[in-house]
This record gives sequence, structure tokens and C-alpha cells, in this order.
Amino acid sequence: MAQLDPKTINKIVLAYSGGLDTSIIARWLQETYDAEVITFTADIGQGEEVEPARAKAEAMGIKHIHIEDLREEFARDYVFPMFRANAIYEGEYLLGTSIARPLIAKRLVEIAKEHNADAISHGATGKGNDQVRFELGAVALSPDVVTIAPWREWDLSSRESLMEYAKEHNISIDYAGNKKKSPYSMDANLLHISYEGGILEDPYAEAEDDMWRWSVSPEQAPDVPQYLELEYAKGDIVAIDGEALKPYEVMIKLNEIGGKHGIGRLDIVENRYVGMKSRGCYETPAGTIMLKAHRGIESLTLDREAAHLKDELMPRYAKTIYNGYWFSPERMMLQALIDKSQEYVNGTVRVKLYKGAVSVVGRKSDDSLFDEKIATFEDDAGAYDQKDAEGFIRLNGLRLAIEASRGRDLSK
Amino acid sequence: MAQLDPKTINKIVLAYSGGLDTSIIARWLQETYDAEVITFTADIGQGEEVEPARAKAEAMGIKHIHIEDLREEFARDYVFPMFRANAIYEGEYLLGTSIARPLIAKRLVEIAKEHNADAISHGATGKGNDQVRFELGAVALSPDVVTIAPWREWDLSSRESLMEYAKEHNISIDYAGNKKKSPYSMDANLLHISYEGGILEDPYAEAEDDMWRWSVSPEQAPDVPQYLELEYAKGDIVAIDGEALKPYEVMIKLNEIGGKHGIGRLDIVENRYVGMKSRGCYETPAGTIMLKAHRGIESLTLDREAAHLKDELMPRYAKTIYNGYWFSPERMMLQALIDKSQEYVNGTVRVKLYKGAVSVVGRKSDDSLFDEKIATFEDDAGAYDQKDAEGFIRLNGLRLAIEASRGRDLSK
Amino acid sequence: MAQLDPKTINKIVLAYSGGLDTSIIARWLQETYDAEVITFTADIGQGEEVEPARAKAEAMGIKHIHIEDLREEFARDYVFPMFRANAIYEGEYLLGTSIARPLIAKRLVEIAKEHNADAISHGATGKGNDQVRFELGAVALSPDVVTIAPWREWDLSSRESLMEYAKEHNISIDYAGNKKKSPYSMDANLLHISYEGGILEDPYAEAEDDMWRWSVSPEQAPDVPQYLELEYAKGDIVAIDGEALKPYEVMIKLNEIGGKHGIGRLDIVENRYVGMKSRGCYETPAGTIMLKAHRGIESLTLDREAAHLKDELMPRYAKTIYNGYWFSPERMMLQALIDKSQEYVNGTVRVKLYKGAVSVVGRKSDDSLFDEKIATFEDDAGAYDQKDAEGFIRLNGLRLAIEASRGRDLSK
Amino acid sequence: MAQLDPKTINKIVLAYSGGLDTSIIARWLQETYDAEVITFTADIGQGEEVEPARAKAEAMGIKHIHIEDLREEFARDYVFPMFRANAIYEGEYLLGTSIARPLIAKRLVEIAKEHNADAISHGATGKGNDQVRFELGAVALSPDVVTIAPWREWDLSSRESLMEYAKEHNISIDYAGNKKKSPYSMDANLLHISYEGGILEDPYAEAEDDMWRWSVSPEQAPDVPQYLELEYAKGDIVAIDGEALKPYEVMIKLNEIGGKHGIGRLDIVENRYVGMKSRGCYETPAGTIMLKAHRGIESLTLDREAAHLKDELMPRYAKTIYNGYWFSPERMMLQALIDKSQEYVNGTVRVKLYKGAVSVVGRKSDDSLFDEKIATFEDDAGAYDQKDAEGFIRLNGLRLAIEASRGRDLSK
Repeated sequence: MAQLDPKTINKIVLAYSGGLDTSIIARWLQETYDAEVITFTADIGQGEEVEPARAKAEAMGIKHIHIEDLREEFARDYVFPMFRANAIYEGEYLLGTSIARPLIAKRLVEIAKEHNADAISHGATGKGNDQVRFELGAVALSPDVVTIAPWREWDLSSRESLMEYAKEHNISIDYAGNKKKSPYSMDANLLHISYEGGILEDPYAEAEDDMWRWSVSPEQAPDVPQYLELEYAKGDIVAIDGEALKPYEVMIKLNEIGGKHGIGRLDIVENRYVGMKSRGCYETPAGTIMLKAHRGIESLTLDREAAHLKDELMPRYAKTIYNGYWFSPERMMLQALIDKSQEYVNGTVRVKLYKGAVSVVGRKSDDSLFDEKIATFEDDAGAYDQKDAEGFIRLNGLRLAIEASRGRDLSK
Repeated sequence: MAQLDPKTINKIVLAYSGGLDTSIIARWLQETYDAEVITFTADIGQGEEVEPARAKAEAMGIKHIHIEDLREEFARDYVFPMFRANAIYEGEYLLGTSIARPLIAKRLVEIAKEHNADAISHGATGKGNDQVRFELGAVALSPDVVTIAPWREWDLSSRESLMEYAKEHNISIDYAGNKKKSPYSMDANLLHISYEGGILEDPYAEAEDDMWRWSVSPEQAPDVPQYLELEYAKGDIVAIDGEALKPYEVMIKLNEIGGKHGIGRLDIVENRYVGMKSRGCYETPAGTIMLKAHRGIESLTLDREAAHLKDELMPRYAKTIYNGYWFSPERMMLQALIDKSQEYVNGTVRVKLYKGAVSVVGRKSDDSLFDEKIATFEDDAGAYDQKDAEGFIRLNGLRLAIEASRGRDLSK
Repeated sequence: MAQLDPKTINKIVLAYSGGLDTSIIARWLQETYDAEVITFTADIGQGEEVEPARAKAEAMGIKHIHIEDLREEFARDYVFPMFRANAIYEGEYLLGTSIARPLIAKRLVEIAKEHNADAISHGATGKGNDQVRFELGAVALSPDVVTIAPWREWDLSSRESLMEYAKEHNISIDYAGNKKKSPYSMDANLLHISYEGGILEDPYAEAEDDMWRWSVSPEQAPDVPQYLELEYAKGDIVAIDGEALKPYEVMIKLNEIGGKHGIGRLDIVENRYVGMKSRGCYETPAGTIMLKAHRGIESLTLDREAAHLKDELMPRYAKTIYNGYWFSPERMMLQALIDKSQEYVNGTVRVKLYKGAVSVVGRKSDDSLFDEKIATFEDDAGAYDQKDAEGFIRLNGLRLAIEASRGRDLSK
Repeated sequence: MAQLDPKTINKIVLAYSGGLDTSIIARWLQETYDAEVITFTADIGQGEEVEPARAKAEAMGIKHIHIEDLREEFARDYVFPMFRANAIYEGEYLLGTSIARPLIAKRLVEIAKEHNADAISHGATGKGNDQVRFELGAVALSPDVVTIAPWREWDLSSRESLMEYAKEHNISIDYAGNKKKSPYSMDANLLHISYEGGILEDPYAEAEDDMWRWSVSPEQAPDVPQYLELEYAKGDIVAIDGEALKPYEVMIKLNEIGGKHGIGRLDIVENRYVGMKSRGCYETPAGTIMLKAHRGIESLTLDREAAHLKDELMPRYAKTIYNGYWFSPERMMLQALIDKSQEYVNGTVRVKLYKGAVSVVGRKSDDSLFDEKIATFEDDAGAYDQKDAEGFIRLNGLRLAIEASRGRDLSK
């Protein structure tokens, strides 16, 4: 992340959505730096066409336009590895936005190298986590990369001044498309859609029902539950109801089915890396099912201490990703530990989806560690000698007994 | 936990439920040790009358019969402190059985001291966690206590031999009362009711709907959601919808309302401390609401690093309780840390209950750390200088930039 | 930490050492802000007189001069609590500089409030950890405090330009006193003296022997070892060789004796919070003895799981202090946990000091948990039943046996 | 670990040292089980000839005698991987005994399979950790293995009864060889020699100087320090003073040099897994040097967060090994994380050895992350912008400032 000198900036690669804000940014970069802007638009499953971004870019005189379908790479190399860890930030958040930023950052710096560009740019504000994730990702892969974050630079700090700028520069305001009337700041990809701002800035105000876009409300979900069989190999879902699917196909299918059953809505206050609390609402249908089901298959196939070690490290792993350190030694070390644990996480989980809730109702596996002969309440024919428990308890309690015998009060 | 010598055992305090199994144990102890048996029966919110245990004990010639209502102590000194930690074992289990055992153990050893008894006894088997919890709790409070665990001692290893013994000794088999026809091993208290055994021993078999006792199925829950306002003081619920309540009253009320909405059913495979996996089903209506709501109020009032520290230590705290170390130096140290964090966890959480799901839809507090002026997407009048983010990112990324500049590939 | 506007700054409280650099800063503040400068000089055991700072301050026209002896507060409320945790940063560093900054920050903001001053100021550079520690400490206690860090503001970036400035402003260069010829950047307090810069900037260069100031080299230490008996109460040393001492007296005495035996020299490369590695040398005679001895007394009196929990949290606690978060919820939570563990850490440790090394050679306590009857290799008269180990091992190994029986290879 | 039935035991593989105790065990097994005993004697660097065990075994009629040199396997696959983690148990102990047991267990079960033997046996007592380590290691690799632990079975509980048994069975008592007069229980391998028992059972008694066998006392060490250059590749030492060496050669060399300088003596009270405290003395010359030097090379080449993550997990990793879980999913997961971190831990460390102390005095590496241009106290020509620190501090302090502004007192 080297220092910025406008005179030396001739080419800038911009993460371009095709929407109003990044169109304004494209124009502002052209003007401010007198530089060529190269756009990069990725389909990471946000649910909107990316191809229209081409005409909009062309209209602004962009010559090099990169439009890519990254859905499979995103699902396979980012989302799925993260779900092996049962990652949740602050007990609730499934990291939908966090996990998408590193891939965008990676492509930005790759395209910048390809074009010998001097800088990359993005549309994240100076208050949020995304600027951090973009820029840490970029610098970890390309240490001398220059990042231009217009929201931290310009004086277009209000919606009005932005609109004024757009009008002055002939940027069509209906670029905003179907987001036009939304009072929320939104972000979407295969894993989730998020909402911030508007009435959500009052954390006691309930989100309005027409805010949600990917899921029906539980009240409007079908009155009949739906069951799914999810098949796992090494911790990843490889088939649904017997149909083999690629990672991104798994996610598309579970988003569709989960959304239909009102699954995956979340309303939280979270702690941003930049120091403030913010309120966000999220829809994560596939992710909500995947988390629950993964715990289900692990419960049957994973060693106890392996599971506990994962659980104790999970919050740290989640924080690492939330804060933007996907490309970092510590994330890779944790990933090595997690991946090592998944070798035998194979088998089938049966889940029930009903009006906003997903429940695991069955799990089976050739690698099951559940031993009916031992666990049974019936006669176990000697598989387990209950007498062993006596020594087990006695030695585990020995330190406590010694302490109590020394007069220590262990009840307070 | 001293060694057992039948000749020296003259008085035994038994944790007595009034049911068939502990009645057989009472008789077996009288016979085997030629000792006086003192019974202890506690109401910890299991939802059954405890007073009938008196007549049954008297029928067996028990002279000292202790029957106590421990619900408030249980809720106030055990369940509520545990919920300050957001404790969950293995990502799912709310520790309903685990948290009740230490209190029983404490009263057993206290009663034993009062009567100058030589031993205590319980009805837990040699395969489960409860024997460990009873006996570690006892030894931590009374290091020389002798515990008799008949299930590890006798040769009544099948249901048939137990029935035979009961018949031979005139123990009325209808003692079992309404549990008579249940094929499950069950345990209940204010926090939950649990089910093990029977068809649950096949982890792929879905629990039958008529197994569940405390909650309706989500399908049969009301079609209209219910909202509650939960008021917190120092991390504990002190009022519901404006009505001040004691801890155990909070739990009774939330169990009733939660159960009506089908909330708190859980079906898992868990790892026992004694080394095997077992499958259990649980109903925890109040606990499920309390966990969700507590996270809600913490999200608004707890410092970020305090919250993350709690999250990272939570699995360990939960394991400590699950394994039976409630009365231990490590649990008390963790409790000191947790309690220290709760000073400002005050305010109100609004939750929505609907067909098996509980959602937080609003939270407010005089101790809120949410700062609309800073978090807003609108003009913040200088409350936050976006330029600060630049230095923040640059120094956080410095180590990564140096590594990348040395040729290290941080993407794998 | 509010934004800086020179016009609004009328009074500034400066952490003033009396040395050349902070004298230049005092003058620079007066000039740049046209503001009254109030000086604060503390004796925290750095081993130099603080009173001479008065005349120097007066010479610059300072009217309000605060000179304080904080040694006891520093030792009692900062150093001793930290040593209860056995805190070490990155396996080596005893946090000598880190622990002194919060107290300075606290007094700066208190004096600022007393004088209704608009800002505080310090002499730490923009590359180091100390600026972070001062400013986080200040903002945690006084959120609107303005901090002026001249090293980040001015253009006196070289030694030459500083000297020039001093000459121009009649600041006596011999202010530097006995530090005059040192090529090192040094910092000292009761806990340590540190050296950075000069030839140490080559991490392969061995520190020159005449750099060290507090200790003789091991080679020059006495040929005869010295033994000390350190008496502990609740984790703190309260007497040495039978003489009751206050915390700061303990430290003075151990520094003197330790230094005589060449104890406490350290040469490391450490990771700064601001993102770079730096090389530092430290002399910490008292701290080195205290750490070793504290572990010695804990080994006898602390419960195993309490000790392990402390050990696992120690790196995090140390990092919290190193990074400047002494005044923070997370440090206070960890402190609550640590302090809870120290109730029975009482007794006597006997240490041997010899040519740079400190060894624990004996420990005894009325709160000892060492039980000769149980531990003995001789006949223990039944205090421990070796048969218990069988069940203990069998149940601890059960999960492994099940895994191996399923064909898992647990050797790789 | 299946149940023991004497009638089914026809062949037993015994970990045989050739000493008196295991000779008695061999005879006792032959007699008690009427079984063939197969001996296994390994050279793991204990510093005594293993070949003499052959004649002693033959004298007892042993037909299958396994004598193996496992030094390289031990150093390469056990000790070196452990040192990558900087593993220390309870802040002091370098795990010398713990790390040797798994390898012995592995060979025992392999030899048992080769001979189709029914059981394995060892000479560890029922009070110690070693029985656990042997038996957990065995069961993890061979789930149905039967282990016979004579010390838990027989009634030879005193030294006298053992001697009596030896005399009766014509077992030559001078088998004990040079250990004859030692009042200590000792164990040795490439990594250390340990002492327990005797006067050490009083934890306040200083160890006698003639107890120590591998090192001179610091007082008798040379008056002139010795310097070594240790070269690292991927976290392992590969050369000393320019001479390429295999892992076990590294250890032999460092033991010799370290011992000459009085390095690696340790006197501690430790917490055993079986619940009691015990006092032990250890000599670990090579290990003490290796630990210090490894931290030295990591300090230069390892990323900060990677180092901190390792430090936080180290106590857990050490405990895993201490408790006997070398062959376990959790140890392998932690190892994967640790090994992942060592890719760039290459370079040279210069250490100084003098009278019991080892100090790192220099470190250099082609993979160094130390950047003189950034770290320098001199003008850095713009490599680091001190202004960045302002935003860094401001955002890191934001949460604290908000809390303080809400009236929270962060100083207690």
C-alpha cells in the first residue's frame, strides 16, 4: 500500500458493479487522476445480471472491461473451506460479505498486473469493514499496490452531492435499477444478501417485512415441512437428495429451497473492525442449512477432542475472516488444522425445513464413531465395563479432593 | 472418594426421585449394606410433584426423608450464571442436565454431614456423565465422602432383572407413574427435559412426535407470532413484559410460552466425558429464548473485545460444566471473568416467537454502545474521520506487505 | 481523541523527562500552539533524579510543574498484578516499558482535568508502541482528550535538525546529561531498562558489553551463588529473607541483588503493534527473579487446571498489555480471572542466583497441594489405589480405541 | 484395551530395559501367565549400551529378543516436530519423558502384531504418567491390544518384596549396574534424564549436587563462554557451526556441549495427569539450547500473528503430549497448524553458552522479516509514514472512547 501521487497514476482497475455509485466512481477517477479506468465486474452469485455492466462501462468510454463468472471459485475455494470450520462471527453472523471480498481483491490485483496498472479502486466507504478487507487482501498479494478509496477522498459525502455529480456528468441515475427505491445499503453474493442503514439505524426498530428479498417470511412459508438428504465428503456437501452437485450448485439449490421456507433471516448488532457497532440484517438460506447440517455430520464422525479444538478456535478463525485477513499466515495455519480434521467427515444428514427453522433429524455414515453396542441402555454384552468409570472419576477428582482436604472451599 | 467397605457403612443419603429405579436402589442399599437409608428429593422444576415421594419412602421404612424446593436456588445460582456465558456444549446443547447435578451433589453431602452419614448414593449408570457430575461435585465439597453407585455395583443389568427384584421386594411397579410406558430414559428440571435410548439409539431415526412432552410441534404452534420484552440487569433477566420476576419465575414463564410456540426442541449426537458418543433429544424452551436474547442485549452493550474473549472461552466453560467441574477452581476463575463483563449488560430485548423459532427483533439500553452518529450512512457531522481508516489499514497491513515483498505467497 | 485545531489549544500537559528531547518538545509546543505548557515528571524508578527537571522547566518559563514519586503505585497496582499472570510477550519479553505507560497516561489526563487543559503531549515517535499505549490509555480514561504527538507532526526528523532547533531556541544540549554519548534509545523504570537503535539495528550483531547499565555481565558476577527466600501472599512477594517489604521495595532490592549477579539480560527481536519487527535489549533483574519464583510458588499451591487455564490465557493477557490496552474491559476481565486464582498462592520460594541464572531450588507452603503420602515411590499405605489408573486410562482411551477400530490411522 | 483373561495370554511383548525391575517383570509375566515373553529394548539415546540386555534376556529363556537403535527416528519424527512448537509444559518442563513413550508404544504393538502376541507389558507404575502414555499410545494404534501393567497387578509393592522375588527367582541384583546406589527413579533418552523420589519428595530440599549426571554444575563449567552457530531449515536445526548433521546427531552434539557448560538443569513441581503433584529434576542440555534458538530464528522470520497463534496454542499442545495423546486427532491437527507455520523458519542463530545459561546474541536469515529501513530510528526516507499511526490509534481506541464517553470507568 504505497503512498498516492496523482501524477503517477495512469491506469486504475476498478471493482465495478454497474450501479450508480461505482459509475460515479469510475467517472470521478477518470477526472481526478486523468487516468484510464479498467472495470472489473464479477458474478459471485449476487442474483443480478453482470452483463449489463458492459454497456454502462462502454458508455463511459472504458476500453478494458472484465466481466467474469466467479461463482464456482467463490463457492469451492472460499465458502466451502470456511464452512468446514462452522464459522460464526459473534455467535450469529455467517460472514457472507466478509468471505467475498478477498476473491475480488485477488482478481483486482491480478488484472492490475496484467494491464500494468498503477492502482486499484473500490466503492467501499471509510466507515466499514469492506475497505479493510479489500485493501488487506490486495496488499497481502501485491505489497506495492496503490488503492484508491474515493469515499475516503472526495467531498461527495451526502446523497444529494452524489446525485448532483451524476447529473453534471451525465451518469444515468436509473443505473440504480431495481435498487432505486431501497432505503438500505445492500450487498449480495451466493452466501447472503445484507441490509444496513435506513430505519435499521435504530436497533430497537423491527425490520420491515418488505425489506427482505431472498426469503419469504416464516408466516408465508409452506405449511408442510420439506426434508432434504445432504451427502458429505471430507466436510463438504457433494450431493443433495442423491443428486451430485458442485459447490456453487449446492448453494444455488439450498438458497432456493431455504428461501422458500423462510430460512436464514438474521437481525443483529455487530462490532466492526473499525471500532463501532452497526446493525445489519442478513438473509443466508443456504449457509444456515449448511452450518446446521455440517455440525450434524461432524457430531457423528468427528473425534471429541478434534471437535472441541475446532470449537475453541472457531471464534478466532471467524474474526480473522471478518477483519479481512483471509490471505494471511494465521488463516492458513488455522485452515490447515481445520482441513486436517475433515478427512472422515463423510456421510448423510437428513434435515427438516419448516417455517424459518432447519433441524437435523438424522445422520448416518460409514465413518460413524457412534457405537450402539457401547452407548446402549440395554445390556451391552461387556462392550463397556462400568467399573472403569470408578477409577476414571476417582483420578479426575483427585486434585479436587486434595484441595478440599486442605480446607479450600470449592463452592465459591 | 474413599474406598468402600460395606461393614463401615451405617447410613447412606440417597438422591431419591420417588420413581421405580431409585426405589429399587433404596431397598438394595438397605439390604446390601444393612444400613439406614435417608432419602433426599428435590423439586428443581422437573414438573412432577415431589411430595408423593414421602409416602413411597415411608413405605420402605425410611425414617429421615428430605423433600425440598430448590427451584429458586437452582435458577439463581446455577442456571442464570451459566447463561451469562452464552454456554453451549458442542455448538448445540444447552447443558440442562449438567447444570442440575452439582446442586444435588451439594445437598447430598450437606445432608450426609447433618446426619453423620457414611455415604451418599445416586441412581446414575456407569456409562453416563451424571455419575461423574455427582461424584466430582461431592468430592470437591467433601473430600472423604464415600459414594455408592449401585449401577456400577450390582448385577441387575437388564430391565428384566430389575423388575424381578422389584417384585421380590414388594416394590410397587406402578411407582413409575406416568413414565410407565415411555421407552426413553428421561431427565427433567427447570431448564430442560431430555430423552435418550429407545429408537433414538439409531442416530438416523427421526424422533417420534409423541416423545416430546414440554412443547408442541412447530406445526401445531399458533399461526400468529408472539412478541416478548425481556428486561436485563447485569446480564440476567429481571422482568418480562414489564413484570418483575425472580429467576425461577422467569424460567417457568418462558418455558410455558416457549413450549406453546414449539420452541427449544433439539436432536443431537454428543460426546460424553466417559468416551462414547450418544444421541439425545432435548426440550429447552426457556433456555433457547434466554440464550438468543442474552446475545441480543450483549450485542448492544458489551465491548467488542469483551464479547470476543467470552466467545473464545465459552466452549471451555461449557465443557467444564458438561464434564462435572462446576465446583472447581477453573470454573470459578472463568465465572469471575464472565461476571466481570456483565456490569453494563442492562436493557431490553424484544423477541418474536413463532413456530419453533425465536428471533431478536429489537434491543435498547441506557448502556448502549451503539452510536448512531458514528454508524450512520448519512453525513455524520465529523463524528468519525474516514481518513483515519487509511492509517488503520496501512499499519494493520504492514506485516503482510513486508511478507509479500519478501516473495511469500499468502494465498496458500 | 478529538481532532486537533491549533487555535483551540491553550494549555497542554506534557510528559516531561527533563531530557533534551522533551525539552525541545516543550518549546515546540509553546511556539507552535502559542499555548501554556504544564510539565509532568514522574519517578517510576528509572534510577535518575527527577527533581532537576524542575529547574529545566522553570528555565523555559513553565509555571505549573508536577513532579511525583509514583514508584509504589507503579509497583503495587501495575507490575505486581501483571506478575500474577506470569506475563511474557512472545516467549521472552517481560513488558517493562508496556506496563509503565498506562500510569503515565492516567496522570496526564488527571492533571489535564485539574488544570482544565486542552491537550496532553508525549515524546514517543510514530513508529513505536509507546504512542499507542499513551494514547489508548488516555482515551480510555478521558474520551475527548486531545493528544499532541510532536514526532508525528513536526519536520524535525533527523538528529541534526533537532540539535539545530535546540541551539536556535537556547535549549541546553547538555540536558542530555549522562545519556549524552549513548548511541541507544533507552527507557527505564522499576521493572527494566531497554535499549534500541545503534548497532542493535543489525539483528546479527551482538550487543556491546558496555551498553548494559543495570547488571554486570555474568562473567563478572560473583563466583559464589547467593540464595534468597521469597515469601508470597496471594501471589505477591511480601518479604525477602524474612524482611517485610512493600512492592516497590521488593523491586528495588531484587534489582540490586539481581543486577549484581548478572541476572535479567535479554536480547530479542519483537513484533511491534504498529506492524514491524524491532530489535531490543532489556535488563530486568527483579522481574526475571519474580517470574521464576512466582512459577515456583504456584507449582506447589495452584490447582492443575487453574494453572493450565492461566498458561493458555497468558499470551493473550501479555499481548493486551503490550498493545496498550491496560485500561480496557478485556484486561480487567482477564485480571479478575487471574486474581481469583491467587487466593492460595502463599508460601516461600528459595532461589539461587548465580552468574546470570536464577533457579528455584525449594518451595514450601501451608497451602501446599503436594501430598507426599500420595506421590511417594514408597509404600503409600493405601492413599492411592493404583487400580484406579486402569479405568482412568481405559475411558480416556475409549474414543481413540473406537477410532482405531474403525480403521483410522492415528499415527499420521 | 480389552479385558484381561490370563488363560488367553500366550505371548507377551515386554518393554525391557535390561535392568532389575523389568527383569523381575519378565519373570513374573512368565510365571503368572504361563506365557512366552518377547523382549523389546530400544536405544533412544539413554546413554547406556542396549546390547547387554540380550544376554540378560537369554538368561531368562527369552527366545525372541528385539534390540533396536531408534535414535534417528526418535529425534526426527518426535523430538524435532515437538520443538517446532516451542513446547513447554507448565512453563518449565521440556517433555523429555513424555515424547519418548509413544514411539515405544508404537514398536510394542508392531512387534506384537508380528509375533501374533496377545498382550504387551511395561514397567511403569500405577501412579505415574508413563502408564497412561504407553497405554493410550498402544490403544490408539491397536484398539484391541491387551496391556499388562504388573505394577498395578502384583503385590510386590515395596523394594524389599521385589528384592526377595529377585532372589527367589535367581535374578541377578547387580543387573541394576551403575544405577545400583541411586536413590532416585530415573529415565533417560536423547532429550533428557529425569530424577524423582528420594529426598526430592520434600519439595523444599535442594537437589544434591551428585545427583546430576549429564551436566556439570554451572559453578564447575568453563570460565570462558562458547558460541555456536545453529542453522535452521523449516524450523529444524540442520547444521551446527557449518557442519551438516542429522537430527539425532544435532542432539548428541548439543547434549555434549550443553552439558559441559552446565546447561539445562531444572527442578520443578509438576501436575501429573493422574491427579497429583510430583517433584522432578531434569537435565535437558540440547533441548534447552534448541528451545531458545528456535525462538530466536522464529523472532526474525515468523509473522507476528502466526507467532502469537502458536504461543496461545502451545500450552495445549504441550499438555496433549504430556498426557499421552501423541497419537490422536487433536495432536495431528495442532501439528498441521504448527508445521504450516515453519516454511520460512530458515536461517542462522548465534548462541552463547556460559555457566548454565544460553543466550541468543544474533540471528540472520534470507527469509528475515526484519526491515531496517522501516525500523530505524534514523531518517527512513519515507518507508513508513508516521502519520498512519494516528488513524491506527484512533480507530483502535474508538470502542474505548465510546465506552468512556458513556461514563464507564475503564480503570477498574
